[in-house]
Amino acid sequence: MSTISFPTGRKFDFTAIGRLCIDLNANEINRPMEQTMTFTKYVGGSPANIAIGMSRLGNKTAFIGKIADDQMGRFIQSYLENEGIDTSNVVTDKTGAVTGLAFTEIKSPSECSILMYRDNVADLLLHPLEVNEALIADSKALLISGTALASSPSREAVLLSLDYARKHGTTVIFDIDYRPYTWVSPEETAVYYNLAAEKSDIIIGTREEFDSMERFENNVEHSDRYTATKWFDYSAKIVIIKHGKGGSIAYTPDGSEHRAKSYPAKVVKTFGAGDSYAAGFIYGIMSGLTLEKSMEFGSAAACIVISSHSCSDAMPTVEQVKDYIERCNRGEITAN
Amino acid sequence: MSTISFPTGRKFDFTAIGRLCIDLNANEINRPMEQTMTFTKYVGGSPANIAIGMSRLGNKTAFIGKIADDQMGRFIQSYLENEGIDTSNVVTDKTGAVTGLAFTEIKSPSECSILMYRDNVADLLLHPLEVNEALIADSKALLISGTALASSPSREAVLLSLDYARKHGTTVIFDIDYRPYTWVSPEETAVYYNLAAEKSDIIIGTREEFDSMERFENNVEHSDRYTATKWFDYSAKIVIIKHGKGGSIAYTPDGSEHRAKSYPAKVVKTFGAGDSYAAGFIYGIMSGLTLEKSMEFGSAAACIVISSHSCSDAMPTVEQVKDYIERCNRGEITAN
Amino acid sequence: MSTISFPTGRKFDFTAIGRLCIDLNANEINRPMEQTMTFTKYVGGSPANIAIGMSRLGNKTAFIGKIADDQMGRFIQSYLENEGIDTSNVVTDKTGAVTGLAFTEIKSPSECSILMYRDNVADLLLHPLEVNEALIADSKALLISGTALASSPSREAVLLSLDYARKHGTTVIFDIDYRPYTWVSPEETAVYYNLAAEKSDIIIGTREEFDSMERFENNVEHSDRYTATKWFDYSAKIVIIKHGKGGSIAYTPDGSEHRAKSYPAKVVKTFGAGDSYAAGFIYGIMSGLTLEKSMEFGSAAACIVISSHSCSDAMPTVEQVKDYIERCNRGEITAN
Amino acid sequence: MSTISFPTGRKFDFTAIGRLCIDLNANEINRPMEQTMTFTKYVGGSPANIAIGMSRLGNKTAFIGKIADDQMGRFIQSYLENEGIDTSNVVTDKTGAVTGLAFTEIKSPSECSILMYRDNVADLLLHPLEVNEALIADSKALLISGTALASSPSREAVLLSLDYARKHGTTVIFDIDYRPYTWVSPEETAVYYNLAAEKSDIIIGTREEFDSMERFENNVEHSDRYTATKWFDYSAKIVIIKHGKGGSIAYTPDGSEHRAKSYPAKVVKTFGAGDSYAAGFIYGIMSGLTLEKSMEFGSAAACIVISSHSCSDAMPTVEQVKDYIERCNRGEITAN
Repeated sequence: MSTISFPTGRKFDFTAIGRLCIDLNANEINRPMEQTMTFTKYVGGSPANIAIGMSRLGNKTAFIGKIADDQMGRFIQSYLENEGIDTSNVVTDKTGAVTGLAFTEIKSPSECSILMYRDNVADLLLHPLEVNEALIADSKALLISGTALASSPSREAVLLSLDYARKHGTTVIFDIDYRPYTWVSPEETAVYYNLAAEKSDIIIGTREEFDSMERFENNVEHSDRYTATKWFDYSAKIVIIKHGKGGSIAYTPDGSEHRAKSYPAKVVKTFGAGDSYAAGFIYGIMSGLTLEKSMEFGSAAACIVISSHSCSDAMPTVEQVKDYIERCNRGEITAN
Repeated sequence: MSTISFPTGRKFDFTAIGRLCIDLNANEINRPMEQTMTFTKYVGGSPANIAIGMSRLGNKTAFIGKIADDQMGRFIQSYLENEGIDTSNVVTDKTGAVTGLAFTEIKSPSECSILMYRDNVADLLLHPLEVNEALIADSKALLISGTALASSPSREAVLLSLDYARKHGTTVIFDIDYRPYTWVSPEETAVYYNLAAEKSDIIIGTREEFDSMERFENNVEHSDRYTATKWFDYSAKIVIIKHGKGGSIAYTPDGSEHRAKSYPAKVVKTFGAGDSYAAGFIYGIMSGLTLEKSMEFGSAAACIVISSHSCSDAMPTVEQVKDYIERCNRGEITAN
Repeated sequence: MSTISFPTGRKFDFTAIGRLCIDLNANEINRPMEQTMTFTKYVGGSPANIAIGMSRLGNKTAFIGKIADDQMGRFIQSYLENEGIDTSNVVTDKTGAVTGLAFTEIKSPSECSILMYRDNVADLLLHPLEVNEALIADSKALLISGTALASSPSREAVLLSLDYARKHGTTVIFDIDYRPYTWVSPEETAVYYNLAAEKSDIIIGTREEFDSMERFENNVEHSDRYTATKWFDYSAKIVIIKHGKGGSIAYTPDGSEHRAKSYPAKVVKTFGAGDSYAAGFIYGIMSGLTLEKSMEFGSAAACIVISSHSCSDAMPTVEQVKDYIERCNRGEITAN
Repeated sequence: MSTISFPTGRKFDFTAIGRLCIDLNANEINRPMEQTMTFTKYVGGSPANIAIGMSRLGNKTAFIGKIADDQMGRFIQSYLENEGIDTSNVVTDKTGAVTGLAFTEIKSPSECSILMYRDNVADLLLHPLEVNEALIADSKALLISGTALASSPSREAVLLSLDYARKHGTTVIFDIDYRPYTWVSPEETAVYYNLAAEKSDIIIGTREEFDSMERFENNVEHSDRYTATKWFDYSAKIVIIKHGKGGSIAYTPDGSEHRAKSYPAKVVKTFGAGDSYAAGFIYGIMSGLTLEKSMEFGSAAACIVISSHSCSDAMPTVEQVKDYIERCNRGEITAN
């Protein structure tokens, strides 16, 4: 019935590989960042957020990544550990690299932007020799974040982790997570995103992110079905294409489309929507929910995160998501 | 009587060239930065602090520098302008460089450290062609900050500004400001610091900073007099060597040493002491005070800054410095 | 009967992608290069040599590559054109890159070494957007040279050319051509060599080159069969593992091994042996010869090249190879 | 009487610092390099040529430089030693840098060009710590070649060698030797050329080279006198400005100009003219010849070099120069 199955008898439900960084969220919001005087520090980075979300949702979770040898790096490590996430494969850089930063600017709930510090960041220095094959072999699922493909040696570490996952039957989830400023050229992006997608079981991205993969294709009409069908010729079992307010569509190899209803939210900012959606959705399919129910669970988790100030820190528990869905169903929550 | 004179009939009393960056000061202090959750944003960078200090002390002040084309850069520019500082020669980078950051950690008043972000920073991209010769020709004094010599093209911009200053008789003040992490090697530092010092009228630095200039010398006893005498063979009129709590000594070509008394302070952190001292001292000598009185004025200005949370924002006015000195003289202020 | 077939109805028999450079061969040989005073210039680079060899053997041949905008680049282009090779996809660099150089040192027939100039070379600047999909679609076979995977953007250009070849049913031949000095790390090499091999129909390399691909495997006994079997799980139809004087072994998916007899030669130097072998072998299988006969043809071609001073310039015609084989069979040629 | 004196009682008459590289001169000349098939190897690099010239002219000569750890580097070292040049301060690189190359193209005696290989060259890696102060202290003259200022750490090594020379009273000769392709920007060139010229006793360059130093000046008429006068305000005793076929002019602080007659030559190529002129001229003034006689001696030395195939290898002895002058005076040599 379910379109995808996960291996059993493994120590970890979920392992993520990629970026670990710091969000510095504006405390004084609804104004340009020039006028923000204080910032609050959170753990950030898409795969970090998803891992924190998965752990909050009760999954045994591990992380493969690299942190700077400084106060920011140590804060990240201890935060993950406090969340119950295994950090045995979180390596500390020794070259003087720094922790990536994201200063958030919230001009209004719909006008959010990020000022990134991505030069000489530790997360992109993860080396293939630092990826623990045994950890991947002992995980039900491996989540790969596209930004970790942006430069060497992290790029090769991720490509190797894909091979380890396939060798050991670990389900691969590819979250495209396209950040143009971290890439040398759109052509380079397309080449590596395609290489990763070829070896992935579940691919999640926005329409724009899938477009970035199709630079050498002829999908002139940006057809979701064209996009999804290509990957079913490789390894994919589920392809989810997100259309923002238009909702998400999940494609499966049997040719069917799956849509979920969405929930209202009092939006503070849009950051973190994708990461909380991914955590909720993956929790759903790993728990045996239908695709539609998994997507709904993801949507509700996203609503909770975008209604609060942080991303990682606001990741909900199962009870919080269920409660949110019930309150929506009772009409207690309306959009702003 | 005074050992140094300044040109007259110029539009600006004081122009600084070099680093413009952002300080992110820990709000929760007296703990490791790992445990700091919020930070407050200030304009930072040694020459920026000195320029702000000089403007607060009533001098017509200008700045030569380069800022990132982002919210941080725009904040710096508007802050300087609000302080009355001329920013016509503050250039905006167009290459995607970022604003340098300094996260401050205050474990205790005497244990302070800084976590720097200095990769791909806009300030080091100031190009020789962007230095306005006319501005230097119309300034009584030009302050050169040593960190701006750390890499090209800022290095060449500063070396050129020195030539412009000497060509037009503008007094050159060289604040050594040695930050090892911004340099490729101690030998490179020594070479460029010597080139700058050769063309400077006033040289200010700590004993350790002068040591960094003497890598190819034989001053094995770290003699202040040896250090000062060397520069009197070039252009120097005043050489100030700072010994932290041991106080500062000013040397002059006539062979005399000048010392000032110091003042007590309720120290919050040590950051900014050197910059406020420099502003106070330069104000003094430009105002016709004796060397000793100028040094005292600098010391009192420094006390005010280290007693407060920020560097730039805490720079005092003349009245505040005078008031501080009087209160010290009345015994109203004691050290912590 | 044959283990591999090639598409028909295409304009080109053979297209190679990758390195185009210059060999500077010592004229005074059998001595250290320090004592060599004059050098002769030849077109070089493994895929260039193979393409020249294929053209000499009567195949319609094209090249995809990038040359410097200088005298060396223009010499390469005109040499290829004089050999009848299509250079419509040989792009000229406009960034000031140089032509790769290889100075050869021949101390004795068995002690040969190369002094390489590979900094800022034009061939590694081939960009994905410069690869002509139509040319690949109109070729029976595409030869990929491993060295072109050594850095970006050439790496991505080659990976994209692989996708074009598979999309259009063009047979992919992967010549490993491992040159350690062009790579950042052995791990990076292994990752990209595996990605290329997964999509190749024919893989050719020495035992040491296959070892370099197996850095993350457990082939502790360096078993050829282990090596070959892995690739039959992907796309490979023929895997050739070369053992120097021990001869070459071709593996096929049916589990069989194929060996060819070798021929004697009066060796001048060992350079070019692999390239001429590859050209001879590919000619053979494309002409319908058996694997064994193709390997023999390759061996004889190699003997001709290592008996002469150059690599590219010495590539033989079909008649010359046949003549060499007959003379060997008549006992007219003996080893030195 | 002479405008310049040299220290006495020193072990070396002449020490040069800077580039050591390889010239690969076309054997088949009077054609584009595309049609040249063989090249002959010589030691090259302006300061190397001058040092070889000085040694041939009977001066005790030493070199400060860095060579690659390869056959080219070893050839250079042994060639210098065979010429009697002290190489105790010629350091061997250990980072894998290469030897700079210059392929010469001689289309006609007046159309000569060079194809340079200057990426990752050993000579520009000379580090300040590798400069032997004692050697400079024991030399009568130090020649600085401008190209060695083109990048770090060679730039700092040269700037430090200047300080050593001034500290020990060693006469500094600055040969501008401007090669635009080795520099990041013309502004950077101007900054460092000025810094070197300020500390030099003798400055030699073409009008175009002096123009490159005056980028931030107002010498709109390219006046030689303006140029020379500037440097007499610093340390210069002789400024020679070369005007190609128009001859050279030497300026001295007393305001006088000095010109020498020129000699005819059967020109093969123009390369090496400046280096042999410099060697001849420096020999002259160090031997007590008048400025005019020294310039004549330089001109005749240059004629000899441009009449032959190489630069370094053709540097003449005193007898050869005198003989050439006599033959010219007897009308035995005419121009081509």
